[in-house]
Amino acid sequence: MNDFLTTSIADMRAHPSDIRTVALAGRLMPDTSVEPLLQVIQTVLGLGKAVIIEEKTAQHFNLTQYASVELRDIGMAADVMIAVGGDGTMLGVARRVAPYQIPLVGINQGHLGFITDIALQDAPSALREILHERQFDAEFRDLLHGEIIRNGEVIHSGTALNDVVVGRSGLEGMLELNVNVDGQFMYSQRADSLIIATPTGSTAYSLAANGPILHPQLAGITLAPVAPQSLSNRPIVLPNSCVIDIEIVSAKSAVVHFDVHSFAQAQSGDIVRIVQAPYQSIFWHPKSYNYFATLRQKLNWQLNPARPQ
Amino acid sequence: MNDFLTTSIADMRAHPSDIRTVALAGRLMPDTSVEPLLQVIQTVLGLGKAVIIEEKTAQHFNLTQYASVELRDIGMAADVMIAVGGDGTMLGVARRVAPYQIPLVGINQGHLGFITDIALQDAPSALREILHERQFDAEFRDLLHGEIIRNGEVIHSGTALNDVVVGRSGLEGMLELNVNVDGQFMYSQRADSLIIATPTGSTAYSLAANGPILHPQLAGITLAPVAPQSLSNRPIVLPNSCVIDIEIVSAKSAVVHFDVHSFAQAQSGDIVRIVQAPYQSIFWHPKSYNYFATLRQKLNWQLNPARPQ
Amino acid sequence: MNDFLTTSIADMRAHPSDIRTVALAGRLMPDTSVEPLLQVIQTVLGLGKAVIIEEKTAQHFNLTQYASVELRDIGMAADVMIAVGGDGTMLGVARRVAPYQIPLVGINQGHLGFITDIALQDAPSALREILHERQFDAEFRDLLHGEIIRNGEVIHSGTALNDVVVGRSGLEGMLELNVNVDGQFMYSQRADSLIIATPTGSTAYSLAANGPILHPQLAGITLAPVAPQSLSNRPIVLPNSCVIDIEIVSAKSAVVHFDVHSFAQAQSGDIVRIVQAPYQSIFWHPKSYNYFATLRQKLNWQLNPARPQ
Amino acid sequence: MNDFLTTSIADMRAHPSDIRTVALAGRLMPDTSVEPLLQVIQTVLGLGKAVIIEEKTAQHFNLTQYASVELRDIGMAADVMIAVGGDGTMLGVARRVAPYQIPLVGINQGHLGFITDIALQDAPSALREILHERQFDAEFRDLLHGEIIRNGEVIHSGTALNDVVVGRSGLEGMLELNVNVDGQFMYSQRADSLIIATPTGSTAYSLAANGPILHPQLAGITLAPVAPQSLSNRPIVLPNSCVIDIEIVSAKSAVVHFDVHSFAQAQSGDIVRIVQAPYQSIFWHPKSYNYFATLRQKLNWQLNPARPQ
Repeated sequence: MNDFLTTSIADMRAHPSDIRTVALAGRLMPDTSVEPLLQVIQTVLGLGKAVIIEEKTAQHFNLTQYASVELRDIGMAADVMIAVGGDGTMLGVARRVAPYQIPLVGINQGHLGFITDIALQDAPSALREILHERQFDAEFRDLLHGEIIRNGEVIHSGTALNDVVVGRSGLEGMLELNVNVDGQFMYSQRADSLIIATPTGSTAYSLAANGPILHPQLAGITLAPVAPQSLSNRPIVLPNSCVIDIEIVSAKSAVVHFDVHSFAQAQSGDIVRIVQAPYQSIFWHPKSYNYFATLRQKLNWQLNPARPQ
Repeated sequence: MNDFLTTSIADMRAHPSDIRTVALAGRLMPDTSVEPLLQVIQTVLGLGKAVIIEEKTAQHFNLTQYASVELRDIGMAADVMIAVGGDGTMLGVARRVAPYQIPLVGINQGHLGFITDIALQDAPSALREILHERQFDAEFRDLLHGEIIRNGEVIHSGTALNDVVVGRSGLEGMLELNVNVDGQFMYSQRADSLIIATPTGSTAYSLAANGPILHPQLAGITLAPVAPQSLSNRPIVLPNSCVIDIEIVSAKSAVVHFDVHSFAQAQSGDIVRIVQAPYQSIFWHPKSYNYFATLRQKLNWQLNPARPQ
Repeated sequence: MNDFLTTSIADMRAHPSDIRTVALAGRLMPDTSVEPLLQVIQTVLGLGKAVIIEEKTAQHFNLTQYASVELRDIGMAADVMIAVGGDGTMLGVARRVAPYQIPLVGINQGHLGFITDIALQDAPSALREILHERQFDAEFRDLLHGEIIRNGEVIHSGTALNDVVVGRSGLEGMLELNVNVDGQFMYSQRADSLIIATPTGSTAYSLAANGPILHPQLAGITLAPVAPQSLSNRPIVLPNSCVIDIEIVSAKSAVVHFDVHSFAQAQSGDIVRIVQAPYQSIFWHPKSYNYFATLRQKLNWQLNPARPQ
Repeated sequence: MNDFLTTSIADMRAHPSDIRTVALAGRLMPDTSVEPLLQVIQTVLGLGKAVIIEEKTAQHFNLTQYASVELRDIGMAADVMIAVGGDGTMLGVARRVAPYQIPLVGINQGHLGFITDIALQDAPSALREILHERQFDAEFRDLLHGEIIRNGEVIHSGTALNDVVVGRSGLEGMLELNVNVDGQFMYSQRADSLIIATPTGSTAYSLAANGPILHPQLAGITLAPVAPQSLSNRPIVLPNSCVIDIEIVSAKSAVVHFDVHSFAQAQSGDIVRIVQAPYQSIFWHPKSYNYFATLRQKLNWQLNPARPQ
């Protein structure tokens, strides 16, 4: 996917020669305590790194004692960004900083996340390992870029680390879509919605719609319909090099979501064009990180209830 | 289903005027300790009840100090039977004593069962409540009766509390079945096997084959195919009054299972006829028993992994 | 379900001593031709029966030459009602005339329906058989009655022949429901929506959400979640005698649908109470009608694509 | 996957400078007519190409008038091979000639196949286009290579174009597997069997087990369990570069299948190691071939039965 130049910048940022400045972002919900964020800030400062706070986080928690920077400028201002919260927090920042190729570290506040894999209580040792000893695994994750095209013009565009969802906005009416892949007609789909998911998103909404789990390094994109009318319909996984055009054939009202964070209204005749984004998210994991262990814990794979003993 | 006479005997046995004799059966596996069984025997004796031991259990654990009775005679010899083990232990005895309308109590040895709902450590208080205070809920569960018919003759018959499974015996070849319901053709089925399940069996093998959960008091029978070739195939639930005829159209080798305990070979041209059994199993539960709580615990319904926070 | 009195009125209406007056309703869409309706009217008149037209149908097609009656009064004015259209047309009238116990005949305009089982070209012979020779099978179908309760008061109520759907109105936010059955807590459900379906509705929206097919005579109600977050969640079938209380725990905005025809807004704290309706729909089928044949044709069960030859 | 040398030989064979000799194989079933094969032979001879017959096909149909060659030598003797039959016929030869990098053309005898995409009546024009005008699309398909390892020694190996299936041989007992991927523990699996499928196999047995459809050019391998006990289990798609080790933890009797054609017994303690094969199958399609059109036709995606009109 990436040409030589892009790849080499991404690689340089994924493996920097030095880590000096660390940006931080938190979970901006009314009920979120500032304590976890403060703990992580102290840990980072204790490791001798400069700290900057994402601007909205600084405002939300009134953290005026630290430098604050807008999210879109963080890629230039910092060497790495730490998200403290849940997978939603991580998704929110990852999608927006991805173009600037800044590596991300995810710290959860109690519940293991698929992408916020460091528990708060393990943060001091994990951050020492990552920031000070520079011992980490850098992982690249695909993102999707989506455009809504009306009468030949792009009227909205967005990026998604998990999924783009084309859905009806409400239970009324019917959503009918025509899907073309690389210019070839694939199928008509009547369903509540159609989820187009990355490997990262394959364990999110797509999984609830019977989509398969995709290993993070699989070069694929899943199309999973929600409540499809055709009983022979099945999730399909396409190479991530495909151009996916979703034409809204008929809908009382349609809506396009990017990671369930941003969304846009769409209408009959619109085309939602989805391609792999020209950049990837970079995640830094502690050396002890294990994708399958996360999967087992999150999906409760140790449990075998269905047969009598 | 039951005519007046049968029902009234079942009701009399489900709610006896006195409980004097208690039969016990255990889990007959090489690695099973006799301790749990001995604990339950002591509890029952302590409540002033006479104890008899199912004959194979007595032999397996060398329990020669108590009266032992063959399983088929236990219905006459005892007022209630206690199974100590897992759901498999309970299934094994329930299916066989059901014609004799003896109530059953299920005690598990550590893992909550769908039908062995009393934990061993709770057995003293639960048995006092049930046997001494006669405080219990009597629950009736449907069973299936199955016959293999070859050239118009019944060559094998069996009973199942969970399910009858008509399958191919091995991965080779193809199993094709024609299913008639009350004399009407329903469908042809090509699949690894076809599961015919009671409500009790709906949380066992059928559930692994995408069958629905049936409430124990639903008067229905599920037909759930395993790996059906037709993508539009779905589990179907029929009234429990139906006569289900499964004709084996073609199979390299077929096998019919009853509760995965007993089985019989079958061949092309055979008809497997399945009807509701003319008697039901009677379960006694403590007053605190709650079907939905068991379901939630067994199926981990508290867990919501699929969406980011 | 039905007490003696109700049952006997329903039986009298299902098997009237004479058939004199026939009501007709059509499909009220801008693109629907009046021709099929006119054909059926001529057939009915040719059989010597009086014809009345449902009022909105009369207005839509400007059929001023016949007597027209409001839908709610048709039960008193006619002995039987014929719906000419698709399953949606039939659903629309069946739900509303059900309290008046008038039998229904469904004629489709080209596509076989699950409940509009007579093809237009077969209508002359089928109607002769049914109306003139009085040769038909009367079938009773369960309906659901639903109420939205806010602060102890019923703020909306509705009836459904297919399903009641409690959903979020849009892709945003999260829908969380607590479900109680006969006063006992069953589960918490996080999903796009929860479908509560009759056997008739089991081949509609519920089927798209992995719900099982329920035979029309099964005394059961299916609860099928759409895109449930918990991977161990499964459709469950309850006895139709259950009182199902669905509490909306949290939702940005929720909506309750009855047969996807009528709907109402709901909010956190509301309880949607669903019980079997106190009356059933009565369908008249030609003697040649075969439920399984309809199922096979509608679901394409003859097709076995999945394995190589 | 392929190193430079392998790739270039495969490319040379996929795009030969001349097509002189055509090998043919047929469907070797008792009820198969020789006519379709004779028609294709005449077409090929009419195009001025030399014909050789696969040896078993020659014997089965007593085709002594043509040169016949063993399947394993066909790669050297011919420029292209034509399979006349169904997908099973194609699978049988493709798996075995793949190491010799000979392109394959699939002609079906009435039913469109996923990989036998040319209808017999279209064969004259399609073969003229492919063999004479050399107008075709060459497509490469991944295969799997599997080994059964016992006490460190390979006791059996096989190749599969569709799938490797590790299953229990019969309904008795329990199959428990531990799966390691690239040396890391992924999960324990209790199921009837575990299907490991290529993109080609994703529309075969895997699809019946709820596996996703993989586009033929997706670089992935699906693991789909049949009737898994754990309700949170889901199909997973791994990069095709993975080494998949499946340890048979316990099984009364286990069996390993390759494309449901060849199989081997396995036992507790055995490891089934599966990797991408070091060569690919080469398919030649007419220019009019369209993967999605085949998919739509085979899976009946035009059909939308589930919602009322």
